[in-house]
Amino acid sequence: MSLAHQDTAERADFSTAIEKLHNAFGDKLSTGQALRAQHAATATYHPMQLPDAVLFAESRADVQQAVQILAAEKCPIIPFGVGSSLEGHVNAPQGGVSIDVSRMDQILAVHQEDMDVVVQPGVTREQLNQHLRDTGLFFPIDPGANASIGGMTATRASGTNAVRYGTMRDAVLGLEVVLPNGEIIHTGGRARKSSAGYDLTRLMIGSEGTLGLFTEITLRLHGIPEHVAGGHCSFPDVGAACEAVIMTIQCGLPVARIELLDTMQVKACNAYNSDYQLPESPLLLLEFHGSAASVAEQSEMFNELAASVGGGAFQWSADPEERNRLWKVRHDAYWAAKNLINDAEVFATDVCVPVSRLAECVTETQKDIEASGLIAPIVGHVGDGNFHCLALLPPDQPEVMGKLDAFAARLSQRAIDMGGTCTGEHGVGQGKCQYLRQEAGAGVDVMQAIKQQIDPDNLFNPGKIFS
Amino acid sequence: MSLAHQDTAERADFSTAIEKLHNAFGDKLSTGQALRAQHAATATYHPMQLPDAVLFAESRADVQQAVQILAAEKCPIIPFGVGSSLEGHVNAPQGGVSIDVSRMDQILAVHQEDMDVVVQPGVTREQLNQHLRDTGLFFPIDPGANASIGGMTATRASGTNAVRYGTMRDAVLGLEVVLPNGEIIHTGGRARKSSAGYDLTRLMIGSEGTLGLFTEITLRLHGIPEHVAGGHCSFPDVGAACEAVIMTIQCGLPVARIELLDTMQVKACNAYNSDYQLPESPLLLLEFHGSAASVAEQSEMFNELAASVGGGAFQWSADPEERNRLWKVRHDAYWAAKNLINDAEVFATDVCVPVSRLAECVTETQKDIEASGLIAPIVGHVGDGNFHCLALLPPDQPEVMGKLDAFAARLSQRAIDMGGTCTGEHGVGQGKCQYLRQEAGAGVDVMQAIKQQIDPDNLFNPGKIFS
Repeated sequence: MSLAHQDTAERADFSTAIEKLHNAFGDKLSTGQALRAQHAATATYHPMQLPDAVLFAESRADVQQAVQILAAEKCPIIPFGVGSSLEGHVNAPQGGVSIDVSRMDQILAVHQEDMDVVVQPGVTREQLNQHLRDTGLFFPIDPGANASIGGMTATRASGTNAVRYGTMRDAVLGLEVVLPNGEIIHTGGRARKSSAGYDLTRLMIGSEGTLGLFTEITLRLHGIPEHVAGGHCSFPDVGAACEAVIMTIQCGLPVARIELLDTMQVKACNAYNSDYQLPESPLLLLEFHGSAASVAEQSEMFNELAASVGGGAFQWSADPEERNRLWKVRHDAYWAAKNLINDAEVFATDVCVPVSRLAECVTETQKDIEASGLIAPIVGHVGDGNFHCLALLPPDQPEVMGKLDAFAARLSQRAIDMGGTCTGEHGVGQGKCQYLRQEAGAGVDVMQAIKQQIDPDNLFNPGKIFS
Repeated sequence: MSLAHQDTAERADFSTAIEKLHNAFGDKLSTGQALRAQHAATATYHPMQLPDAVLFAESRADVQQAVQILAAEKCPIIPFGVGSSLEGHVNAPQGGVSIDVSRMDQILAVHQEDMDVVVQPGVTREQLNQHLRDTGLFFPIDPGANASIGGMTATRASGTNAVRYGTMRDAVLGLEVVLPNGEIIHTGGRARKSSAGYDLTRLMIGSEGTLGLFTEITLRLHGIPEHVAGGHCSFPDVGAACEAVIMTIQCGLPVARIELLDTMQVKACNAYNSDYQLPESPLLLLEFHGSAASVAEQSEMFNELAASVGGGAFQWSADPEERNRLWKVRHDAYWAAKNLINDAEVFATDVCVPVSRLAECVTETQKDIEASGLIAPIVGHVGDGNFHCLALLPPDQPEVMGKLDAFAARLSQRAIDMGGTCTGEHGVGQGKCQYLRQEAGAGVDVMQAIKQQIDPDNLFNPGKIFS
């Protein structure tokens, strides 16, 4: 989070809108500076752009009424879950009102036989899994942060488990949505599949708050695996590690997680926690889900695959404590990277490429990092071809920001040229509008035509996706 | 297919459009009656509505040029693959030109490492799997008919394998699309996931030709399973069969197919082929994919589950010939049903409900069939909660059509009331417009707003999805 505010010069005056909102909602509405700043805390390098007020919505009716009042006043509306998004999604570049849904944290129904759940958008993923713990079911999408389900839906989030369980695109079965015109629609439903008209559910997933505000979300769940095994394996170079990933996917091993840490990231982890003492070369961390026999079989198969491309021994365990120690390395990665420079901010990139191009993309990116004089360890959800550079912005060297921007632009272009995308899971937000155009070309015009049709006054999260 | 033509009275005159098309395309264009009739052959009870001409497009450039010419003349455009869709999708209620893409049948690229393939829309699923046979990969979506990939994309098709491999929603990674304005866009890509803006790929999948014509489709493939086992199991009633399905899914058995035939359907199969001699009670057919040990383990586990709810012995085999014999029953189901009445036409319904409601929905529907005096065996992709009534329309009793319509309306409402959908995989087409409104409510207004924005003159497949 940058502490430097950056409000645009010509913000409109929304005092009438806010007065009307205050009359309707009383102390659910706040205009205090600290709270407004908290709601523009973007968890990244994006400068803060404060909303004029924050409304704590407590129900579908609250959200609908607020949208009706604010739309009539042409006042921008910025949805807010827990604020863990990484591309400035919660910023208010034109001012307006942040609608905080954290009080809408009810788990409305668990359908065990159908393996689905209906939640309000402010429910967090950890809260949901805590609630589900006695049902034998779990919600697998894990973007790292304890994000809200609403926010995860809005950014089409995924994370480490996506290689097996998919992304929010796959996890969301249906939505209740308040549209910019104040109407409520229900998309999708609880059936596992449907061919009933346009897929509005998928249109809303990943729309980053620009098309509708979610008030209920129906999610697909999975059975908690009987057994879980985890392990790690070092490789002589990134190419060998990626080769092992490709063979793993190709031979149908149903790996639940397969994560890459490059040499710089391994070094950062070793420096962060002296207990790790990992070999300082590219590392894969893996997890397998299934029966006891199946996870053992999968682990042994991976061991053979890894050995065939020069990987070290695959050290695995089904012991929960050992597994937790193992995944602590992965969970520490962000903080270990940040720790390489005191008080640095992290500029996280998010490209995703076809897995056959992954080694090439990572290797070229490492060369670019070195040539640019940047510090940027790499971690990746490599089963999907998705990796993040945790590029550091030192606190006393604002001139590095220009270098980071140029590096990110080259990286996005590199991924797009390889048939990939500028964002695998973080979303476009404020940071990637120009890359979206490079990637989607005239498709952006279609997106904007849809936006224009559904939100003609551009009131829902303006300045996101489209600049 | 009904042989009775039914053209609307007030069709516009598109002779200028067709003349221009003829000048541009020569003998790729045909206005012959037989060919036009073939392109309105809807494979179901829907009356035929012939296009004014048929254009055999051979390339992206052909499609784009044809759209530009026809859009300028405000002439409707109806895409055609192989004509196996079931809801009148290829009909031309307002006349216009059928654009047949069957000559666009090139498999443009197979990426083995990435397990994807790029095809033209006229490639059929059997052609694709034939082409892939030496790669160790296969395309799993199997709607029964040897449909075109373009048509399957347009209707969001699925079929027997969807319980394990998903539907066309999951299989399509990216699209090249000619829009009504003649522009070409590329949606999605070859990366396994992306958060780059609105999910136009998913918006196009299932849009039934109303938003764009597909000229290239990138599909996700899967590894051919090392071993396949199949088997069947009889149950005392539909409730017990559905209970076995629920337990199978809940305990995480990665079943590849799980199909229900109700008693009337089993009787129809026995009557169709005297070799079958199946017990005349509800039947589940199953298939498991995996290692030899895994398919054996899965089969044994299912055997135990089935026994616990009163099912008969689960007879399974990994022998390909025995499996083929088994699945012949399923593939014969349509013809066996049709055979119950000489020269009958089949009115196939397509509801899908949460699996917990499946037994109730099937049982109530069976009662309805009996009370209505209809002949309508039931088959279902029950792992997804999707089932079809193969309701028969006798050739000499047109008055039954009214009964069938009323029955279908009650069935759709029943499924919607249970949290399900009026169409699991066939699409809306001409037959389910009114049910779509019941199901999606104000969501249909959003769909129509999008349609209006992208195709303001309503030229792309008019009269489908929206009536």
